[in-house]
Amino acid sequence: MTNLLLTGIGELVTNDPEREGLLGVVTDAAVAVKGGRIAWVGPETELLREFRELPELDGAGRAVLPGFVDSHTHLVFGGNRADEFARRVRGESYQEIMAAGGGIMSTVASTRATDSDTLLDEAVRRAQRMLGMGTTTVEVKSGYGLEVETELRMLEVANSIAEYVPIDVVTTFLGAHVVPAEYEDDRDAYLRLIVEEMLPAAGGMATFCDVFCDDGAFAVDEARVILAAAAEQGLAARLHANQLGHSGGASLAAELGAITADHLDHLTDADIAGLLAAGTVAVLFPTVSFSLRLDPPPARRLWDAGVPVAIATDCNPGTSYVENMQFVIAAATLTTGLTPEESVWAATRGGARALQFDDRGWIKPGTVADLVMLEADSYLEIPYRPGTDLVRMVIKGGEAVVS
Amino acid sequence: MTNLLLTGIGELVTNDPEREGLLGVVTDAAVAVKGGRIAWVGPETELLREFRELPELDGAGRAVLPGFVDSHTHLVFGGNRADEFARRVRGESYQEIMAAGGGIMSTVASTRATDSDTLLDEAVRRAQRMLGMGTTTVEVKSGYGLEVETELRMLEVANSIAEYVPIDVVTTFLGAHVVPAEYEDDRDAYLRLIVEEMLPAAGGMATFCDVFCDDGAFAVDEARVILAAAAEQGLAARLHANQLGHSGGASLAAELGAITADHLDHLTDADIAGLLAAGTVAVLFPTVSFSLRLDPPPARRLWDAGVPVAIATDCNPGTSYVENMQFVIAAATLTTGLTPEESVWAATRGGARALQFDDRGWIKPGTVADLVMLEADSYLEIPYRPGTDLVRMVIKGGEAVVS
Repeated sequence: MTNLLLTGIGELVTNDPEREGLLGVVTDAAVAVKGGRIAWVGPETELLREFRELPELDGAGRAVLPGFVDSHTHLVFGGNRADEFARRVRGESYQEIMAAGGGIMSTVASTRATDSDTLLDEAVRRAQRMLGMGTTTVEVKSGYGLEVETELRMLEVANSIAEYVPIDVVTTFLGAHVVPAEYEDDRDAYLRLIVEEMLPAAGGMATFCDVFCDDGAFAVDEARVILAAAAEQGLAARLHANQLGHSGGASLAAELGAITADHLDHLTDADIAGLLAAGTVAVLFPTVSFSLRLDPPPARRLWDAGVPVAIATDCNPGTSYVENMQFVIAAATLTTGLTPEESVWAATRGGARALQFDDRGWIKPGTVADLVMLEADSYLEIPYRPGTDLVRMVIKGGEAVVS
Repeated sequence: MTNLLLTGIGELVTNDPEREGLLGVVTDAAVAVKGGRIAWVGPETELLREFRELPELDGAGRAVLPGFVDSHTHLVFGGNRADEFARRVRGESYQEIMAAGGGIMSTVASTRATDSDTLLDEAVRRAQRMLGMGTTTVEVKSGYGLEVETELRMLEVANSIAEYVPIDVVTTFLGAHVVPAEYEDDRDAYLRLIVEEMLPAAGGMATFCDVFCDDGAFAVDEARVILAAAAEQGLAARLHANQLGHSGGASLAAELGAITADHLDHLTDADIAGLLAAGTVAVLFPTVSFSLRLDPPPARRLWDAGVPVAIATDCNPGTSYVENMQFVIAAATLTTGLTPEESVWAATRGGARALQFDDRGWIKPGTVADLVMLEADSYLEIPYRPGTDLVRMVIKGGEAVVS
């Protein structure tokens, strides 16, 4: 593991609650890294002599942030739905698009038909681009297999990405994404398949189990059964909740104390109170609403209520083929009413909270030395300059992996 | 000048009206370049033997488009207004921001105080990033000097950019951006300064004269006087029009047969009819409305009426610090109701029309060989994948300048 002394940091975002302000910014800062972890953080004038001997890198006044944590993606998939995107923005209805072979089932068909090497190759390229734009930890879900073999294959591919790209991958089993066509007339049989065959195998391959609990996907009672079975396999609960309607997913998340509830476009005050009481992290997608031309997610309401908020790409081939967390921060600031500070926190510490990491998303002694250096002197430039990749250097575990 | 044979193009956007569809797409295409200009375009199977001897580059099935033409920017400026951006998105009023030293006058003060070498260095870096993201021709305005020396210095700097970056720069004199504080009580004296001192010098240094004709800037009668004097110096007319209100700028553009009318957020049907009759190009900014959280520009109405539409970044430190035409295309598709095809046309041929170029923005024999190759097989991927820079290679005048 690498040792490093980063000096000349004009503005350091630490997210350390013991420092001032939401972002715990330190100006004219230095960071010492030993064995891939943060050993010391503070104003450079206070740097201890012992760290002066580490290999030094001069930030030349630039801003440094914790690496972005993209806490919700569907990064492994086969095929491409650019044509469907074009039909959608030209105004075709979802029914027409489905009739033309589009929608999630087209990705299921492509993913099933794509061999693992190809799936991995494409996922690695996506992860490499994400890393280059500052993401150092990424969550990846299954859910385009909807059959035992392809669901497990997707988890296997996701778990292999980090062998080829210096990015940390956290995997989530999402066999309960939708009910596949072949089980349309026997939903219970598909539930049994998930509980009896998929979950026992997925247990050792993933950290989380997610269920798409919404109109047209899985009902609250179905999700409850699946997440209970997942818990027995050691998988912590997440929920795609209240994206399409007020479908009960958010209250189930509160009931179960789920780690995250994701999307949350339709929320009552009671839902918010429930999430707050349960300590559930709200994972929101400002670029999904941008891509779908819908109202932005209720980030302001959730934040003001005290619910921890993460923002993520939801990178997927249907509703948001976005890989860039800088763009997510800009969209959060410009569409949801979060401030630049809140947006940056939600993309770093918020994402880490969503993935249950206590040692990343902030910069203080003991945390993983995942750092992003901007070609700019402040984090403010991220939402101020949307569309320009401001990342100059990415440091993963103390090592410069993109520069 | 360079000769080149580009083969293996999966999808070539020509914008040639003699080919099918708005974008005149040719699949499995080849392009031959001689002396920096297009010599031949067509399906590769029809390639003439004489071009087979040119140095060949294999597109490997990728998409190729004309280089983007960014037809409206304020690329030369001093200072930075990230702090003002933060105040704005936190909800402070324009009055509060002005009182805190923000607004356009802060950029005027910084630009006046910045020496030409520094202005040029920063402008070159912006232009280099733009080129890297596919822009091969960029318009640059003065307008942050508002005094003879700095206005001319800005044009000089703009005219020097192309010595350092392989991008074509078209310059516009915008001394009539706002009335500077020192002339607040004597607007006529500032008008005289423009007409009698700035314009005679700017005549040899710029292609266009632009006036910000809107509430709080210049009145219709003032703009008419300035543009008449500009015409005597050989400068063609453009107008910042109807951005802040229904201020008469669009009808003045129609009356004068201005080359472009830019912004146009407030338009009546009569304004649109006037622009159509005058042959004026409407230059619109989907990322400005995104950055300012305002309604998108009326691109759909203008396009449907038959007015030629260009989209551009309006790159400036106050309302839209955007350098990326791919992002402008995505925002046009996702916020204004233009289709992906219309958005791509507006960013290429539309931009060239706005700058009166007959030899760029389309790919046909005789045009300048400014080409963008994507790391993707279709132009559709640009709005489908917002936030990811899809440019793999930029070819300027037949030469690969970014790869």
